[in-house]
Amino acid sequence: MSTPAPELMAQLRELLGEKGVREEPHPVWPNTVLKPETTEQVSALLKLCHDAGQAVIPWAGKTGLVDSLNDTCGELGLSLERMNAVEEIDELNRSCTVQAGCILQVAAEACAEKGLLLPLDLGARGSATVGGNVATNAGGNRVIRYGMMREMVLGLEVVLADGTVVSSLNKMLKNNTGYDLKQWFIGAEGTLGVITRVVVRLRPLPRSQNTALIACADFDSVTRLLGWLDANTAGTLSAFECMWPSFYNYVTREGSLHRPPLAQGYPYYVLVETLGSRPEEDLERFEQVLGDAFEQELIVDAVIAKSQAESHAIWEIRDDVLNFMAQGPAALFDVSITVDQMAAFIGEVEAFMNGIPDSYNVTFGHLGDSNLHLILGNTKADNFDKSAIENHVYALVEKYSGSVSAEHGIGLAKREHLDRSRSEEELQLMYAMKRMLDPKNILNPNKVFSADKVA
Amino acid sequence: MSTPAPELMAQLRELLGEKGVREEPHPVWPNTVLKPETTEQVSALLKLCHDAGQAVIPWAGKTGLVDSLNDTCGELGLSLERMNAVEEIDELNRSCTVQAGCILQVAAEACAEKGLLLPLDLGARGSATVGGNVATNAGGNRVIRYGMMREMVLGLEVVLADGTVVSSLNKMLKNNTGYDLKQWFIGAEGTLGVITRVVVRLRPLPRSQNTALIACADFDSVTRLLGWLDANTAGTLSAFECMWPSFYNYVTREGSLHRPPLAQGYPYYVLVETLGSRPEEDLERFEQVLGDAFEQELIVDAVIAKSQAESHAIWEIRDDVLNFMAQGPAALFDVSITVDQMAAFIGEVEAFMNGIPDSYNVTFGHLGDSNLHLILGNTKADNFDKSAIENHVYALVEKYSGSVSAEHGIGLAKREHLDRSRSEEELQLMYAMKRMLDPKNILNPNKVFSADKVA
Repeated sequence: MSTPAPELMAQLRELLGEKGVREEPHPVWPNTVLKPETTEQVSALLKLCHDAGQAVIPWAGKTGLVDSLNDTCGELGLSLERMNAVEEIDELNRSCTVQAGCILQVAAEACAEKGLLLPLDLGARGSATVGGNVATNAGGNRVIRYGMMREMVLGLEVVLADGTVVSSLNKMLKNNTGYDLKQWFIGAEGTLGVITRVVVRLRPLPRSQNTALIACADFDSVTRLLGWLDANTAGTLSAFECMWPSFYNYVTREGSLHRPPLAQGYPYYVLVETLGSRPEEDLERFEQVLGDAFEQELIVDAVIAKSQAESHAIWEIRDDVLNFMAQGPAALFDVSITVDQMAAFIGEVEAFMNGIPDSYNVTFGHLGDSNLHLILGNTKADNFDKSAIENHVYALVEKYSGSVSAEHGIGLAKREHLDRSRSEEELQLMYAMKRMLDPKNILNPNKVFSADKVA
Repeated sequence: MSTPAPELMAQLRELLGEKGVREEPHPVWPNTVLKPETTEQVSALLKLCHDAGQAVIPWAGKTGLVDSLNDTCGELGLSLERMNAVEEIDELNRSCTVQAGCILQVAAEACAEKGLLLPLDLGARGSATVGGNVATNAGGNRVIRYGMMREMVLGLEVVLADGTVVSSLNKMLKNNTGYDLKQWFIGAEGTLGVITRVVVRLRPLPRSQNTALIACADFDSVTRLLGWLDANTAGTLSAFECMWPSFYNYVTREGSLHRPPLAQGYPYYVLVETLGSRPEEDLERFEQVLGDAFEQELIVDAVIAKSQAESHAIWEIRDDVLNFMAQGPAALFDVSITVDQMAAFIGEVEAFMNGIPDSYNVTFGHLGDSNLHLILGNTKADNFDKSAIENHVYALVEKYSGSVSAEHGIGLAKREHLDRSRSEEELQLMYAMKRMLDPKNILNPNKVFSADKVA
């Protein structure tokens, strides 16, 4: 751990002013944080840092879940929080241009006022930023309908490690002019460039929302229901969130904040949502489709939300993830497993956890995207061995050819498990890319992979 | 222009056998074509070529439109045509895995038999291959609904210039494990690696198709109609194809193959299509939505297809592009312009063409994707100056911040105009990528940019 050179800090203070260099004590993140106001300042400060070999960690909303902001070698923080403007909402082209530090919810609300949807939606919407969403290729609640952040990005402005500004602020849906280099930076977790501006593709704002909570008798029914619903709600299915009894029964237990919309005791619960354009007709069709699914014995019980409040109540059950942590320390997983392997995978995880005294385990996820979240903990802190659990589960992910990170990314937290989902050839290509774009390794070093891999 | 060394050819013949090295005379493409049967053979032959500094041009369907296969320095052809199997259709995960040389239509029909849609659709479906679609990031008729090829690719197997096989045959919708390196190869036109296998995301097969031909009174109505229809056909709008009178009136002229479904003389014609799941209800809603648009004066006339045959007849008008070439030589353009700039851009193009004696010009395009196709020709061959037209039009594209290639790519044909849509910083990044992945420049050299740029 080194300290930034005093000469460099003096130059940075002169460049950015008093508000642009702040001391913000934190146990594991860099304590000195640069806060530029313009792309030109980002460029100039990176040029100074590059010349001095000083590493930086780009951040904004600080809502990541994989220890991406941890100080590993005396980095400076590089916060985009002052670059937070919604610069343009282009109603005709249906795109918006925002600065990277713009909070997701702020951008989405500005678009909604113009009748347009910024489709990304996730729990941290009130503090996560659009730039961070791009840097981590955020997923969230509606991937099955609108894709991940990558699918929504039309254009980017990025500052490279040496301060070069690369402006690719494309607004067109189709643009095959050479390599689509914005893709290189999406999901790179701030290790290849600093994202300063984003052009996001917008969609029409939905005018109807239909939500249901469904019970299924077995996992086979759940997977068949997914295909069947998608086929019968053409283009409007926006969520297919599966909750195992370990999730549902606990969240809706007696004395909890939630009243169970469906009785406990079913093998699987699924939250289903469609977003449409004609409220009355859409509700009618939604009821009809679920009725058909019932007749075909794909579902055994269901409740359809009759109001915005009922819809909220169902979503709140699904979103009440923090509830579980009260039981004791836990390891959190965000993995992908193909649907055909999911039941076997979860069976092995449960068997493993059941062998640990006082353990608890919870399974839920965006099943429509092959994305599972697991909370594996212990009600007695002394019995909790996080790394043993992680090693076991990630080994299972590897066994089932899954992904150790579906949507949260790698950061520092999953770095040691990256090779369970990626081959040596793939890793070598990543290292080569990092060396090419950041030869001095000053952009969020040691994240995704350690510095020695690219030395 | 050099000739491959006899020693290398002997090694290649030994590796690939008689069927794997063919002489296929062609005026501008390489005459000697390698035809491997397996990824291992692709790897081995590239290793030999890499060691010998022998360049290759990967191809399969040979349906590209930008001179991507032209011999520029004594390249060998590298045809994937024998690697054409549909290897797996995974109904549960809704993905298919095909070899790169598999013909698009063959793959799509195999998926359709399982009730699944391979969403890419374009005129060359009967000869274009899935690998070629990936290498060129193909667009086509349904981009507004399903995105371009890039959005459909879940996984790739690629062989690098030195023969390294990179297997990223991911089947999961969400996978944030480090850099998403498959993106690097999509749309790179065979200059960064040879694609050998593709995992494609599938969708439910639509069960209803509704098609209409619409007339609009002015361009403002056309653009507002796009937003309005998208908002009112939630998730099901699959085509929004605009034809200018220069297109419609000629294709439906007296004595042509087509009967005009709408009278000639309207300022704009739009082909609209939705793909849904419930035939009767969907038709009812389609009629209702168009009726509402009529009442709101967004459209002045419309005809809704009442049968598959009528739908075909409308599409055949839109697809009858070759019809125009009979008038005389022409330059073809595939550009993107944001919708707000489109009318002004086309006004300038028409003014320019009107100043050329005996010229003709035709405008149509995937307006929903900001993609315009122009056919600018002359009925007298002697008056036709292709490069003067190209220079003028591409300068206009630059003026309006458009893209010189929406979907066809750059190849050799648009290479000199790439910098009209890309900044020097972007180009330098592309050159760096090419140098990193193909340091000897043996993969389709001189395409996208000339060899001296990366020397």
